[in-house]
Amino acid sequence: MRIENIELFYLSMPEILDEVDGSQDSLIVKVEGGGFTGWGECETSPLTSIANFVCPKSHGAANPVRDSIINQELNNLEDIKKIIRRVKSRSLMIAQTPHTFSGIEVAILDLLAKKNQCPIYELLGYKKSIPKLAYASVLFGNTPEKTLQIAKKMNQNNFKAVKFGWQNFGLNLISDKEHLVAAREGLDKDSMLMIDVGAIWGNNINEALKWNDILSKAKVTWLEEPFYSDAFFEYSELARQSSISLAGGESCHSVESAKNLIRYGGVKYIQIDAGIAGGIIAGKEICEFAEKMDVQYVNHTFTSHLQLSASLQAYAGSVKSTLAEYPMQLKPLAWDISKNHILKDDSGYITTPLEIGHGMEINEKALDQYKVDVEILINSKRIF
Amino acid sequence: MRIENIELFYLSMPEILDEVDGSQDSLIVKVEGGGFTGWGECETSPLTSIANFVCPKSHGAANPVRDSIINQELNNLEDIKKIIRRVKSRSLMIAQTPHTFSGIEVAILDLLAKKNQCPIYELLGYKKSIPKLAYASVLFGNTPEKTLQIAKKMNQNNFKAVKFGWQNFGLNLISDKEHLVAAREGLDKDSMLMIDVGAIWGNNINEALKWNDILSKAKVTWLEEPFYSDAFFEYSELARQSSISLAGGESCHSVESAKNLIRYGGVKYIQIDAGIAGGIIAGKEICEFAEKMDVQYVNHTFTSHLQLSASLQAYAGSVKSTLAEYPMQLKPLAWDISKNHILKDDSGYITTPLEIGHGMEINEKALDQYKVDVEILINSKRIF
Repeated sequence: MRIENIELFYLSMPEILDEVDGSQDSLIVKVEGGGFTGWGECETSPLTSIANFVCPKSHGAANPVRDSIINQELNNLEDIKKIIRRVKSRSLMIAQTPHTFSGIEVAILDLLAKKNQCPIYELLGYKKSIPKLAYASVLFGNTPEKTLQIAKKMNQNNFKAVKFGWQNFGLNLISDKEHLVAAREGLDKDSMLMIDVGAIWGNNINEALKWNDILSKAKVTWLEEPFYSDAFFEYSELARQSSISLAGGESCHSVESAKNLIRYGGVKYIQIDAGIAGGIIAGKEICEFAEKMDVQYVNHTFTSHLQLSASLQAYAGSVKSTLAEYPMQLKPLAWDISKNHILKDDSGYITTPLEIGHGMEINEKALDQYKVDVEILINSKRIF
Repeated sequence: MRIENIELFYLSMPEILDEVDGSQDSLIVKVEGGGFTGWGECETSPLTSIANFVCPKSHGAANPVRDSIINQELNNLEDIKKIIRRVKSRSLMIAQTPHTFSGIEVAILDLLAKKNQCPIYELLGYKKSIPKLAYASVLFGNTPEKTLQIAKKMNQNNFKAVKFGWQNFGLNLISDKEHLVAAREGLDKDSMLMIDVGAIWGNNINEALKWNDILSKAKVTWLEEPFYSDAFFEYSELARQSSISLAGGESCHSVESAKNLIRYGGVKYIQIDAGIAGGIIAGKEICEFAEKMDVQYVNHTFTSHLQLSASLQAYAGSVKSTLAEYPMQLKPLAWDISKNHILKDDSGYITTPLEIGHGMEINEKALDQYKVDVEILINSKRIF
C-alpha cells in the first residue's frame, strides 16, 4: 500500500499555564493508506511542527517533512526505515524535524500493524509484552506539605515508585531538602523515589554537586536531567563525582544523540520519548544499544496514553529494562485523546497493550472539542 | 535602552532548486531600540522559524521565542547573555529555537554596537580584526570537466584555498576520484583543497574509509561532515583510522554540541554558523574552547555577506584560527541583501569589517523585491 493521506490536528487546553506540563496541548497525526488509518502524536510545539510539515522548500537538505512521506510505499518495516532515511537526509537542516516526524512515524507503524493485524511491538520483533513497574510521574507541590500529600496519595494508589519533577527544584537547597524529606516520608520505605530537575543547573557542575548530600539521604534511584541535554561532559563529571545514578534523554532528537548521552554522559537510565527521538524504531535501536552498555531504557511520557503506548512499544519485550514512566497529573485534554487507557495493576505494573497497532483508540470527539484552527498562507495561497 | 521591536522578513528566490545551496532563501531580522536599528539573519527554514517566533505557548519550557526577548533591557553584553539564558530555558523544548534565535542575537549585538559606536568584535573584547585566508566555497561541477573549470576559475581569482562540496560526492568512488583529480589539477600546487560531503555516509564508518585513499592522494586539507552531525563516535573512529583531518560543526545548535564534536568527535576544524549555533557570543565561546584544544575555528557561511560578517565576528581577532569560508556561488538574493560586501584582497585574504556593528548595510529594496508574504492565523486571529 501507499501512504495516501497525512493530517495534523492541533489540540489545546483553553488556557496554557506556565508550569512545565507537556499535556496542555498536542499535535495528533492521522495517516491513511490501503483502507486503514494509523494514529500518532508529536511531542512538540504544534504550530512550529505544522510549519515544518508544510514549509516551502529552502534547499535540497531543507524540505518540508510532508513531501518526503506522502505517496511513499508502505508494505514492511524496511519501507519505514527507507522513509526515516529519506526524511533525515532531505530535512537534515531543519532542527524541528525529529519532533514533527516522530508522531508521523508512530502513525505509520500503527497503520502497518493494522494491515498486518498485530501489535507494533511484534512488528519490531518482540514476541511478547512484558509488564513494567510503573513510576508515577508528578510535579512537586508548591509547599513541602503539598509534596507530602502527593506522595501519600501515590502510595495509597499502589505505586512502588514515584518521580517528582520541576517546579524550581534545584534553586534553593533548604526548601528542596524539605521537599525531599516530605516526598520520602509519604512513600513506603522500599519504594523508589526519582527526582527530575529539568536542566536547572545548565552546565554548572559545582552547583549540581551541592545537592548530592540531600539527594543521597533521600535515597533517590536517579537524578534526572541535571544539565542541558547535550552537556555530556558535565553529565559524566557529575556521574564520576557524585554517588547518584543519572537519568536523561527526553530531549534526544536522534539515535546518535541518545548513544552519545550513554557513551559520553555516563547516564544509567536513558529516557526516550517516541514523540521526540524520531519514533518507535529509533527507540528500539537506542534500547538495544543501552542494554549492551548496561544502561536501562525507560520511556519518557508526560502526555496522552497514545503517546504512552507509543513510547512503551520500543522496549515492550525487553527483560532488562523494567521501569516505565506513568504520568499522573494529565490535563483533561491528554486523558481525553484516547477512548481507552493503560491501567496500572494492583502490584504497580503496566503492560504495553496487546491489541493491534499501539492499541489506543482515538477519541475523535476530542479532536473537535480541543481543536485549534490554524491557517497558514504563503503569498495569499493557503498551504495549511 | 530596551528592545522595542523585532521584525522578521522572509525572502526567497522565485524558484528553489533541489541543490543544497542555502542562499536560495533567507530570514532577515530587524530589531529596534533607543533610536537604533540592528540587523541579523537566521540560517533556517524561514516559515518554521517564523512559527517558532510567534507560536502559542505549549508550556513553561516551550514558549514562543519572541516573548523572551521583546521589551528586555539592552545596555551591555551581560544583558544579551541574560536574554540568551532566558530564551534557552523558556524554549528549551522547541528544537528549532537556535535557528530562530541566532539571527536575532546577531541583530541585537548589531544594535548594541551601534549604540556604542564600535564593531561587534570590539564588544566581544577583540582589539582588532585580523585578516583570514579565504577559501572559495563552491559546489562540485556536474562532470569532472566542469569541476576542473570551476577550480581553474577560483585559481585565476587568486584563491589560495578552495572547498568543493555536495552534489552526491561520496556515492561513487570512480567518478569521485575523477572530480578530485580535476579539482587538484585546476589549482596551484601549494593551494589548499577541502572537501565537504554533507553527511553522505550517515554513520557508516566503513563506507567513509573507502574514500581515504583518493582523498589522501588529492592532499585535501580536510574532509568535512563525513557523518550526521551528532555521530561523534563515528567521527572519532574515522579520525583515528584515516590520515585525513576532519572538519564539521555547521549543524551545531549550541555551545555544548560544538564542544562535544571537538571533545568526542576529534575534528581538527570546527565550523560554526552564527545563524545556527545560537549567535556570535556562542561562536566566541566555542572559538576559545576550540583553540585551547588545538582545533581551528572556522566560520560556516553559504549565504549573504551579512551572515558572512556575523560569522566572522566571533573569531575576528583570533591569531590561531586563520581560515575563512567565502561563498562563491551565491544566488542573486543572497548577494543583494547587503549594499556593501566583504571583498577578498589580491593575496586571497578577507577581513572582518572595521565598521560599526557588523558593518553590513542592508539593502531594504531587496527586502521588498524578494519578499514572501506570510500570514498565520490561530482560531481566525492573525498572529503573524
